[in-house]
This record gives sequence, structure tokens and C-alpha cells, in this order.
Amino acid sequence: MTYDIGILTIGSELLDGRVQDTNANFICNELNSSGLNVSIILTCPDNLGQIKNSLSYLIQNCSHIIISGGLGPTSDDLTREAVAEFFNKPLKLDQEAFHYIKNIFKNRRRQFEPSNEKQALFPEGSTVINNPNGTAPGFWMEFKNHLNMNASLSSLPGVPGELKAMISESVIPKLKTRLVGITPLKKLTFKIFGLPESVVGARIKELQLSDDIIVSYRASFPEIHLVLKFPDNKYDSLDLNNRIVAAIGSEWIFTKDLAQSFENTIHELLISKGITIGTAESCTAGGISNLLTNSSGASSYFLGSINCYSNQLKERLLKVPSDIILKFGAVSKNTAIEMANNARKIIGCDIALAITGIAGPEGGTKEKPVGTFFIAIASIEGCSAYHYFYPGSRARVRSYASYMTLDLLRRHLLNIPPQIESPISQDA
Amino acid sequence: MTYDIGILTIGSELLDGRVQDTNANFICNELNSSGLNVSIILTCPDNLGQIKNSLSYLIQNCSHIIISGGLGPTSDDLTREAVAEFFNKPLKLDQEAFHYIKNIFKNRRRQFEPSNEKQALFPEGSTVINNPNGTAPGFWMEFKNHLNMNASLSSLPGVPGELKAMISESVIPKLKTRLVGITPLKKLTFKIFGLPESVVGARIKELQLSDDIIVSYRASFPEIHLVLKFPDNKYDSLDLNNRIVAAIGSEWIFTKDLAQSFENTIHELLISKGITIGTAESCTAGGISNLLTNSSGASSYFLGSINCYSNQLKERLLKVPSDIILKFGAVSKNTAIEMANNARKIIGCDIALAITGIAGPEGGTKEKPVGTFFIAIASIEGCSAYHYFYPGSRARVRSYASYMTLDLLRRHLLNIPPQIESPISQDA
Repeated sequence: MTYDIGILTIGSELLDGRVQDTNANFICNELNSSGLNVSIILTCPDNLGQIKNSLSYLIQNCSHIIISGGLGPTSDDLTREAVAEFFNKPLKLDQEAFHYIKNIFKNRRRQFEPSNEKQALFPEGSTVINNPNGTAPGFWMEFKNHLNMNASLSSLPGVPGELKAMISESVIPKLKTRLVGITPLKKLTFKIFGLPESVVGARIKELQLSDDIIVSYRASFPEIHLVLKFPDNKYDSLDLNNRIVAAIGSEWIFTKDLAQSFENTIHELLISKGITIGTAESCTAGGISNLLTNSSGASSYFLGSINCYSNQLKERLLKVPSDIILKFGAVSKNTAIEMANNARKIIGCDIALAITGIAGPEGGTKEKPVGTFFIAIASIEGCSAYHYFYPGSRARVRSYASYMTLDLLRRHLLNIPPQIESPISQDA
Repeated sequence: MTYDIGILTIGSELLDGRVQDTNANFICNELNSSGLNVSIILTCPDNLGQIKNSLSYLIQNCSHIIISGGLGPTSDDLTREAVAEFFNKPLKLDQEAFHYIKNIFKNRRRQFEPSNEKQALFPEGSTVINNPNGTAPGFWMEFKNHLNMNASLSSLPGVPGELKAMISESVIPKLKTRLVGITPLKKLTFKIFGLPESVVGARIKELQLSDDIIVSYRASFPEIHLVLKFPDNKYDSLDLNNRIVAAIGSEWIFTKDLAQSFENTIHELLISKGITIGTAESCTAGGISNLLTNSSGASSYFLGSINCYSNQLKERLLKVPSDIILKFGAVSKNTAIEMANNARKIIGCDIALAITGIAGPEGGTKEKPVGTFFIAIASIEGCSAYHYFYPGSRARVRSYASYMTLDLLRRHLLNIPPQIESPISQDA
């Protein structure tokens, strides 16, 4: 058993669907950032037997248990009783906590009810964890597990604002002191657009990485996130990074920072290069301009967009010649080129992006099925257009097409060739 | 052991904090509405031993296990292997599923990789659960537990859109046949925009509903979803509905169908009334037009949008007189009115919506703090503008402002007065 942490969230409201638990995710995030590893999350109702049952399972599998919830004053708050019974310890009144709680009530001019006294009761031998934001202190216990190894437990109130402060200020610092000699895992992260998860997986597989490098993938449509965790002392982070980048192909990785969004990478590029931009959108109808303005400061590069859904407006506002639409169709490279070139002139921007496509589910033909789209980029160097195909729901086609257009811009700004045209896509 | 259900969500990304699981909460809600009881939720990483360990715990405590995740094509997808090993059954290729998957790839014109064949492998003796929305079918197994009682298991992909359909269409009907004699709860649902959750909560509280009517709220920004569950045989559904609508105020409820989106209610209104629409957007930069075109068939009412982020473009494209911008500012009622009136003429639509505001976090002033926005609606009857304020992050301001503009349109189409102007908002 390595130093794994288990989380127990207690509350009947979490099991009947009334409440979406967010505490476990917060705790996982905080611990992970501190190099600590959560291996189990367990949720059980406010029931003495089920809490004890859960504790038993977690203690068999983890070195530390973090409990969230069940420390309130009402009769369905049973965590302290369950822990005390499980370890066969009596509950004792902690005088300091008792006065602390009484004081909060006094300061808030609230009546101190006898039921609130319960919140100062803790299993004998435990240490009180202060709650700076509420009336329910938590507690910390140390014990020997079934293998006679050192183990510990912390029990916190379930109110998110209270729990969060206690995790950051008390539990993590305490856990870190117990972890002398344990090497936290190092992490490498990659955010990818344009390759399907199966292709990324195949490219990583070819590297035949050792088993102690944990590889995980997440599809966050239309992005793929790749995370590697490895023992810091065994691998050279830079070397590993270079191998991964070479295997995937650097042009597909838009950021190595999990916290940075796709559009924000483009925001930073545009700002650093001092380039202004505008869009002419048909099928995405503002989806691209909306993405381009997600970050504060977008006004320094984004001037505007002209989104012509109807053919009439494409002719009237974007000056697409009617014979182009007649000859090639509104969904065509030729129309996309006219849209981009004219938008660039009308908006007066350095670079204009244009898109026209069939988002579906209606409107597809045999030659241009749903998921077909054409994008064009016009700049001082000229205008190029590309033909892509992405089958899927309307929402996915629109989202993918918006990303594809911004990826064309990203590659243009970075002097990377555009993605290969795919009238028949491999990317779904 | 009563007929308790256990949920196992599998995925390393759920334990390192990258992803907030929402599948378990969805499953709890759906099962609860069908009168089924979830007693444990367990989360474990993509690790063969840990999945088997989790199965063992759940099977000791539950009559049915629902597994979410780990059915994908990559090497870290281990659910089918773990279940097969746990029950000591070989994995067998299901021909029908194999052809189904191959067919999806063919229809999507995607290359069928050998790794995708894995998705047609199932533990011997299991039944395939169809996945109408993706390439990973699930499976259902029946077995005797350690007490020699009938037990079962269903394994589903973790992609929320795929899992949800499979839970509703396959798992719940199958579970119900195993549970003769259980009374399901009836459900009333309301989707609300414009009132804070606390106000909705206070209005419902005043009704003093009986304890056996379970009321739950969910904030799905910027919407509030209200769900009531009650024993069908004790309450008159229509009467209860009328009391809720009267308490909340019908003008705030945009739909009673949880599956219908806000923008789709407007889509339906515009189609039924045969009205065409266009937008002129500044701070939302296409967010409104993008929402307006989320449903298929939008081309019958949406003509286009002119999104002018820069003041120069507001003057040049939307013909906002420069003295209006100079005198009142680009963020003002007067500018919004010019934008709407001129967009209506330029686009040639029946109704034009315009918005100008300060999304932040930079750009606020004392008179016009971040979160200030002005919206205008122009139609044959004339043009009106409104001043609202919604403090929050850039993303929230933009999303709220887009909704507010569409709500103005919704109310206009339904002859409901607009929301009261709120230069200082109560709604944050």
C-alpha cells in the first residue's frame, strides 16, 4: 500500500440526486497539486452502519481518509458518532471548541441551542481542526491500520466554503508532514486539437513507456488532453517531454498548460504579434467571434464580424457575387474566399477568417453531406481556402468547425502548415 | 440487503481533479425518479486491480451495479477486462456489435483502427446494451452474489451524452422488470431565467409543501431548474403545477421540459410566428447569434448579425453617428438604439436585437461598472432599450447578457413586459 488517500462524502442528498457533490473534486485538485494521490472516492448516506462500512473499506485501502459532511447539529448528522463507534472511542466535549462555537453564536446574535453543543464533541484522542468559516470544527485522528501501519483520518463539515478553507489551511499541511521520504509524482500535460484520441493513443503506445509512467487521456470535445505522471527521481522531465512531443507532432499541441484554453493561446499570439482580426461566418453564426473574444483585452485585436446566414445577405453585406453562389454554391471554397477577402476589406482588419458549411441535421446532399465546411483565411499575403468534413451532431459540427478555423489562424501565425484537407474526415 | 444500487465511476481523471464527475448525479436523479435507491457511489482509477477491488465491495453491498467509464479504445480503458477477470469469464467478440461499430465508422467515413475492435468484446454471458449516440456499446450481466442472491451489473461508456441515453432507454427499463411492486415518483419540472435561486426557493417555501414532496433546485448558470417529485397517488399533478406556477410567476418559466434549451423555446416561437431576426452585438460578439442558430431550421428566421467590437466599425458598418458615441458613449441606451434600428434596416429583418456592454474584467468605470449592459429591440412597432447590470466574471457577464437579450425577445413575442431595468442588479 502506497500513501493513497481516500475521500468519503457523506449525505443522503448526494445519493438521491438532489445535490451534485463538488467537494471531492475540489479535494482531488488540491491534493494533486500538492503531489498527493487520491485513489478512492466513496459516497454513502447519513446512516450509522453505512458510514462504518465505508470507513472499513477505505481504511483497508488508504493511508489517510478525508471525510466530508455529517458534522452539523441535526439528528441526521452522524459522522462523529460513526467514527467514535468504529474506533471504539467515547465522544468527549472539547472545552476550547465549545467556547469557540458559543462565541460565534454570540457574535452573530444567534440563540445557542442545546443541539449545537454536539458540535464540540469529538472522538477521544482526536485533535480539533479549526473551522474559520463556520460553527462546525473538524477533527484529525491517528491510528494503526489492519497492517499495523500508521494511518490517519480527517473529518470536515460538508459546507463547501468551510471545507475548502480547512483542506488548504489544515489538512494539506498536516498530510505533508506525514510524507517525508515520499516522492510526489511529476506531471506533464498536453492539450491537443485535430487528432482523434485513438491516434494520440497509438502514437504514445509506440513509445513503449515504462509502467511507472502513468498515461491518461481525456476527450474534452473537440480537444484531447494527455497527462503523464511519473516519479520525479527516475525520469528526466525535459527528455520525456521531448519524446512525447516528437511522437505526437508539435503542431497538434496547442498548449502544455491544462489551465489555458484553446482560444486563449490564440489571444496571446494575436496580442504578441499586434495583428487585428475579423470574421465572416455562416454556419457558425458568431461562434468563432465569440470564442475570439473570450479573453479580456480582445478589443486590441478583434474588430468585428459579419455573419451572413442567408445567401441574400452574403451578397448584400459581404459582396459575394451572386454568380459565384449560383455556380459553386453558398457552401464552397469560392464563396469562402469571397467572404474572407471582402470581410478583410469591409472590416479593415489584417487577417479575416471566413466559414461556410452545413451544420445539419438537415441540408446535406450527396456531394456536400452534413459536416462539410469550407474555411478561408485572407491576409496581406493573399487568401487560401480549405475543405473539411466532420460528421456529427449539429452542436459538434459547429464547435469543431469553429476550432478548425481558429486552428488555421493559429498555424498561420506560427508558420505551421494547415491541417491536411479532409473532404472525408479521419477526425471524428 | 434491500434492492440497493451501487454506482462505480471509473477514470483517473476523476481522482486527480481534472474532471468533475456528473454521471453519478445524473444516474441518482433518474433512478430516484423511478423509485430506485442508490446506496453507494464509488470512484476508482483506470487500474485493473482497483476496479476489481471496487466491484468486490459493491457486490457485497448492492443488488445492482452501474459502471460508468473505461469502455473506450485506448490502453487505459480497462473496464471490460476487469469485469471479465472478476467473474472469471473470457471476453468474446459480439458479431452484431462489431458490425454496428464498423458501420458507424463507415457512415462517418472514418478509418476503423484495430483498437476499435476491442469495443465489441464483452464478458461471456453478458447482453449488449445499445449505444445510440456513440461507438462504445455497453453490457448487462446477471449473476449470483456471495449470498447466492440474484444480482446484476450494467457497464456503460463514461461520455455523458452516451451514458444518459443508455440509462434512460435501457438500464432503467431493465431494472424495473426486476422490481415488481415499487411505486415510482411523479415529477414536475420548471426551467427559470431571471430570478436568483434564493428567490425561487423563498417563493416555493411559502407554499409549505408536505414533506413527501421532494423539492430540488439546480443552478445551471444562468438558468435555475426546479424539480418536484411526489407520490403519484397522493397529489393531483395539475393542481400542484398551478400552485408552483402561481408562486414563481409564469413569466419567469421559459419551459417545463427539462430537455428543452432556452434558445430552443425562442426557436419555436420564431418559427411559429414566421418572424425574421438579426443581431448587432458588441460585448457578446456573436454569442447571441450563435445561440439563435443552435437548432436546426434556424435559417428560416435568422438572417445574420453584424458584430462591431470597435467603435470605428460601429460607425462604419452599423452607421451609429459618431456624435452619439461621443455624447453618450459606446456603452449607452442611445448607442444600443442606433445599433438595433440600423441593423434592422441593413439586415432587412423583422426584429433586430442589439447589445453593448462592459464584460470586463477591465474597462469598467464608476458610472458604468463591469457588468453594465444596454440592450435594444427594434421592430415595426419601434425601438426600446433597457439598462441592466450583472456583476461577475467575464464569461458570466457575457452569458447572462446574451440570455437577457434573448429573454427580451421571448417576452416581446409572448406579449410579456420586459424584465424591470436593473442598473444595480439584485440577481448576482
